[in-house]
Amino acid sequence: MSEPEKSGDVPEPAGQGNTLPRGGNPAKSPQDFDLAAIYVSDAQYNRNIYFDTSPQAVRLYLRYNHWLSQVLLYFFILVDLSLAIFEEPAVLPLPTWATMLVELLCLLVFTIRLVHYAKVIPRDKFWKDPKNICIIVILMLTLVDMAIYGALKATNCYALRWSRVLRPLLLVNVTEGRQLRRAFRSIRNALPQIFYVFLLFMFSLLIFSLMALKLLGKRMPAYNASLGFTIFFILYILINTYIFMSVFLAVVYNNYKKYLKEEVQQMVRAKRHKMVRAFAVLQEQRVEGGGPVVTQANWNQMVRLVQPNMSNAHRELLWSVSDDKNQGYIGKVPFVQLADLLNIEVITVKSRPHPLHSMCPAIYLSAPSRLLCRLVQHRAFVIVYDLIILVNAVFIGLDEQNQMIANSEWVFLALYLLEILLKLYVFEPRAFFSRHSFWNCPSASQIISTRFDTIIVVSALIATILNSTMKSLEDYTTRQILDIVFILRVLRLIRVVDSIKRFRAIINTLIRIGPAILTFGQLIIVVYYIFAMVGMELFKGKVKFYEEDSTDPEKAYCGNPLLKGTAFAELNYCKNNFNNVVSSFILLVELTVVNQWHVLSSGFASVTYMSARIFFVLFHIVVVIIIINIFVAFVLEAFFVEYSVDKSDLQTSLERKIEELELAVEQEKLEDNLVNAMETIDNDQGTSQSANTKPALMFKIASKRYRTVDALLQRMFEADLDPEDFAENDDPEAQNNGSFVNPTFSPV
Amino acid sequence: MSEPEKSGDVPEPAGQGNTLPRGGNPAKSPQDFDLAAIYVSDAQYNRNIYFDTSPQAVRLYLRYNHWLSQVLLYFFILVDLSLAIFEEPAVLPLPTWATMLVELLCLLVFTIRLVHYAKVIPRDKFWKDPKNICIIVILMLTLVDMAIYGALKATNCYALRWSRVLRPLLLVNVTEGRQLRRAFRSIRNALPQIFYVFLLFMFSLLIFSLMALKLLGKRMPAYNASLGFTIFFILYILINTYIFMSVFLAVVYNNYKKYLKEEVQQMVRAKRHKMVRAFAVLQEQRVEGGGPVVTQANWNQMVRLVQPNMSNAHRELLWSVSDDKNQGYIGKVPFVQLADLLNIEVITVKSRPHPLHSMCPAIYLSAPSRLLCRLVQHRAFVIVYDLIILVNAVFIGLDEQNQMIANSEWVFLALYLLEILLKLYVFEPRAFFSRHSFWNCPSASQIISTRFDTIIVVSALIATILNSTMKSLEDYTTRQILDIVFILRVLRLIRVVDSIKRFRAIINTLIRIGPAILTFGQLIIVVYYIFAMVGMELFKGKVKFYEEDSTDPEKAYCGNPLLKGTAFAELNYCKNNFNNVVSSFILLVELTVVNQWHVLSSGFASVTYMSARIFFVLFHIVVVIIIINIFVAFVLEAFFVEYSVDKSDLQTSLERKIEELELAVEQEKLEDNLVNAMETIDNDQGTSQSANTKPALMFKIASKRYRTVDALLQRMFEADLDPEDFAENDDPEAQNNGSFVNPTFSPV
Repeated sequence: MSEPEKSGDVPEPAGQGNTLPRGGNPAKSPQDFDLAAIYVSDAQYNRNIYFDTSPQAVRLYLRYNHWLSQVLLYFFILVDLSLAIFEEPAVLPLPTWATMLVELLCLLVFTIRLVHYAKVIPRDKFWKDPKNICIIVILMLTLVDMAIYGALKATNCYALRWSRVLRPLLLVNVTEGRQLRRAFRSIRNALPQIFYVFLLFMFSLLIFSLMALKLLGKRMPAYNASLGFTIFFILYILINTYIFMSVFLAVVYNNYKKYLKEEVQQMVRAKRHKMVRAFAVLQEQRVEGGGPVVTQANWNQMVRLVQPNMSNAHRELLWSVSDDKNQGYIGKVPFVQLADLLNIEVITVKSRPHPLHSMCPAIYLSAPSRLLCRLVQHRAFVIVYDLIILVNAVFIGLDEQNQMIANSEWVFLALYLLEILLKLYVFEPRAFFSRHSFWNCPSASQIISTRFDTIIVVSALIATILNSTMKSLEDYTTRQILDIVFILRVLRLIRVVDSIKRFRAIINTLIRIGPAILTFGQLIIVVYYIFAMVGMELFKGKVKFYEEDSTDPEKAYCGNPLLKGTAFAELNYCKNNFNNVVSSFILLVELTVVNQWHVLSSGFASVTYMSARIFFVLFHIVVVIIIINIFVAFVLEAFFVEYSVDKSDLQTSLERKIEELELAVEQEKLEDNLVNAMETIDNDQGTSQSANTKPALMFKIASKRYRTVDALLQRMFEADLDPEDFAENDDPEAQNNGSFVNPTFSPV
Repeated sequence: MSEPEKSGDVPEPAGQGNTLPRGGNPAKSPQDFDLAAIYVSDAQYNRNIYFDTSPQAVRLYLRYNHWLSQVLLYFFILVDLSLAIFEEPAVLPLPTWATMLVELLCLLVFTIRLVHYAKVIPRDKFWKDPKNICIIVILMLTLVDMAIYGALKATNCYALRWSRVLRPLLLVNVTEGRQLRRAFRSIRNALPQIFYVFLLFMFSLLIFSLMALKLLGKRMPAYNASLGFTIFFILYILINTYIFMSVFLAVVYNNYKKYLKEEVQQMVRAKRHKMVRAFAVLQEQRVEGGGPVVTQANWNQMVRLVQPNMSNAHRELLWSVSDDKNQGYIGKVPFVQLADLLNIEVITVKSRPHPLHSMCPAIYLSAPSRLLCRLVQHRAFVIVYDLIILVNAVFIGLDEQNQMIANSEWVFLALYLLEILLKLYVFEPRAFFSRHSFWNCPSASQIISTRFDTIIVVSALIATILNSTMKSLEDYTTRQILDIVFILRVLRLIRVVDSIKRFRAIINTLIRIGPAILTFGQLIIVVYYIFAMVGMELFKGKVKFYEEDSTDPEKAYCGNPLLKGTAFAELNYCKNNFNNVVSSFILLVELTVVNQWHVLSSGFASVTYMSARIFFVLFHIVVVIIIINIFVAFVLEAFFVEYSVDKSDLQTSLERKIEELELAVEQEKLEDNLVNAMETIDNDQGTSQSANTKPALMFKIASKRYRTVDALLQRMFEADLDPEDFAENDDPEAQNNGSFVNPTFSPV
């Protein structure tokens, strides 16, 4: 067997040497279970921290990973970032001492977090990690800046809070935001390639500008002058817009994917390594001459620690998957699979009769009641309601001042309520409202839609009633409530999408890549924040916005005489300014979608200096050329994976295993006819498929959903990953040949 | 052996049954060689025509494929398409009878071509091919339209030439434009998928518009009204711009690639099938009990017919690659490879001494001369000239009115001339100017650049001299010559790109996908032409353009009172009209790059009816959403192939074979030091590597270039193609198991 020592420079678990002499099988101490549970949990969530294995450090480490400390940390980062709202130039001005005090508190929290981290991991590891050095430097610099700023402010000198640019870096480094760090690393690695294409692009622009200068310089407007120049422009557009932008996308996509794949491979290797360490802690020698194993009792105790709220049935299901020969113990390979098993979302459903069925079976099982159930479950029911929604869409588009149309809203609300009541009558309420509505919602989008639907309809009902009572009572419409009613009314329409299968596939993909898009959201916020801070220092107060009804003559040129006659002032872009952090963000969004980029950049260049354009060009390069392309590349890749998964049925080996064990409920059986299915299940209770499953319990894999972004990434590169990482080989010796190589936990 | 009969519904070669009785090896008739050569040539160029194999039909088929008849056909298609310039509304008006006469001539040519085709292929095949039916219908409809139009014109009624919309379809169907037809087929196949995403996109737009209508309808401008609405717009941009556009690209890319792959697989199968047929014609039984073979003599005679201008040495090289055991005959598998072998560009170079070397060796081989040679070949020489070019770029940017800067042009021209002369002194002139400059141009871009460079410099010299003589003689600068001088001056700068390796890789890819981009060019022209014809009928004369110096009061609203006060008239977009085919094309280009789409579409809608907007929306969907995305997908795919080729060294088996035979010249040997290399070659003459190659002859594979678009496509899908299509297996029996299945030559 692969000795733990072989696996390299991770510190040895302290207790292990004593509790696991070869051949002897002493009882495991609670610390051992704690340690193993931590390894498994780290593997499940891909946490890469080299914690010390002394019981004290393990306890600290548990506290470090506690959800409360994580939430607190994110809260303080949010507070730190949102200080920009209250600092000069402020949206809501607060005295300088107040923001400084809050910032000091945040810094204190970050310092405590860092000290906590330092206590958890060995000292030499701590100082080797650039991430920690980075945090310390940022904290130092911020303190220095605050001291200088405070002193200068006190003497009424001009002071600059330059360290605010560093704040988003804390979001990157202090938190366990692996996805974010990974994205930054991938971008950094892809930069050289992008740079070369960018140089070539610049060269192409140079050639075209020189030609334009020489040929068109004195003969504008070109198009009216000669038709021949049209060819020039067409060539320009073809080369610089279509070809170069495609090349940018190709290069960004290719490089980003390449480095991301490497990272994911490392991640998978690290995960397996952690599982092997957990195995090493719990292993014992059962069969003389055989490999070390983990018994079901120890495994159960550990899994209970890892996921305290997992149902017994679910845990037994996992065990039966791992121990497919029913031996009562498992070897290393099935043990290692546990990390992936835990990441597969298994839905446990108890099939229970409808409450009305128990209360008054005579009525509920009567012929009209049964007919109603059949009607509601019929496809036509769905189609009728889709048509109702479409009619509703038309009514929404019509003018609501018309009394008849205003009243029609009540009709539609009544129809939607009727639908919910009918469904409640037919389906078991708990199943209907449960998190993974088992009965009528097989897909991710449907899970969202049913609950979403109910919430929307009920809140629309409440808001509409509220609105009309207010209207009748005071003859006064509060705009806010009416807005909410409108939004709810429109959102109701989304339901239609759900009933068309092709749409559902697309929507599912979009929902699945949602979490990954959030990573890009963080990335964008980090970049925006830095640019907003710099922009505010450069341009604050240069452009003023006057209210609509202002009669100030300065309004015509945004309060800055330098803007007289510029397109910026003529188009009344005065509200697009860097006067506070919110305006700055909105301005940066406009720059991202390249909306009037030239007007904005030339406007700000004319109020400062021409070199200010560098700021706008830099922003364009970073956001539009690099980050947007990476975003597109990510969406592309996710769709390609979806398409290939649909075609080649790329189920993970674990999912297949569960299906082999015939524990998965066949969905068709349930969907075809619910009442029949329920009866079948009732009849089957005595002859349940597996001895391990409790009767009347059904398992279903929400196979297409990913619990974490990492799981999605792993799935994306599954086909390209080292096959040994997914080895189904039951012979543990096969795993011995360096497959659990020492992972390099690469820091930022 | 796979009997020819097995290979399916292709008509049997007529003479084969007689000339090839089993066991007997009668001499092949000239018709047999003609037939075999046609099969091979068809395989090489992927022509898929089921021609009759009777000698008469074969002769007709040869004439059908003759380059002259192809050129004539393209010429008449061009004439037919360009008739739009002379027809109402015309750029250059011609009387109706003249254009009608020319069109009749074109129709006649197309009819002759079709009759010719009908004579070549069997009758039942002709009527089964929708392509032919399509041509006949178009010809009929055009004749009918012309008759009606002529009659109506004669009676001075309003007449419409609606059949002009059909003209570009002739370009698709009459010519052998397989790439174009393939592109159309792929688009057609991908349409359903694209349609579903498009519906979803429309639905998303509907939801957002309804919300906008309800929330913002009466409260514009939204941004100034409330910050909350900014979130609405950001969501709108994120979902409808970034996410949906990425999804469009993903769906288009995925589907286009999928269908293109299928087409390429069919193409490869058809190619192999044709080669098997050629083999069947020439095969004879050499070894008793062995498989049928083709002798070197027969092979030589056939290859001479296929490529009459191939050098003997080159042909012998190909034979030695095919007959690697030196048996004097080859089996089916190496014979089938010939089609691919012929598509590999092999450069034959005779190493001959420099003419000066032969004329006065004493001087040419003297120490100073040798030093000069070494200097010119040194890297520093390239760097110095790159610097000169950069300095030149700066000078071009400066004002040419300055006398010193105007004169500097002469200095630069002299420097460039000096470079050419020095290179001519050092390198053998024929090698320097040859089509595949062997010595100093290993890559495709360099091949272009050296000749390009010389042409540019020499023509710049001529133009500059011409310009200054004219200037000094008449004190008058002709604008045209000056423009050419400027263009040449700027184009000279492109050379810099070539000396940086990273740039060269990108440029090479772009050059390689050039021919494929031309296919897209044709596709765009077909779509543009149809939209231009429809647009001209809908909008001709609705908008008038007045010259810059016109004082007509109607100029303010483009001659149409309906345009008064519209953005179209205010922005003076009068020149963007459908008044003739050239303006229409330019307008469509503007619509393609989505430049002021809303202004243009609303302008034309206001001069006709609101429904005219459908025209603009349709154009946007077809061109921007489908065709542009396919273009981007194609560029992406080509770059991915380039990247993976660079990494995994995906040489085709044939190229590898040539390398195995050590016939390929190692490039480094030649580049390092040319004089030494030449000496080595001179010394090696006696002990030449291969007995088959003539002494002092070198072969080099221009491995990264593709002779045809089909070769590029084949390379793109090489990894995904059925491995049997590239089977290296020498056992002909292995090929017997249905690998040469009957190809389905799918028509349009």
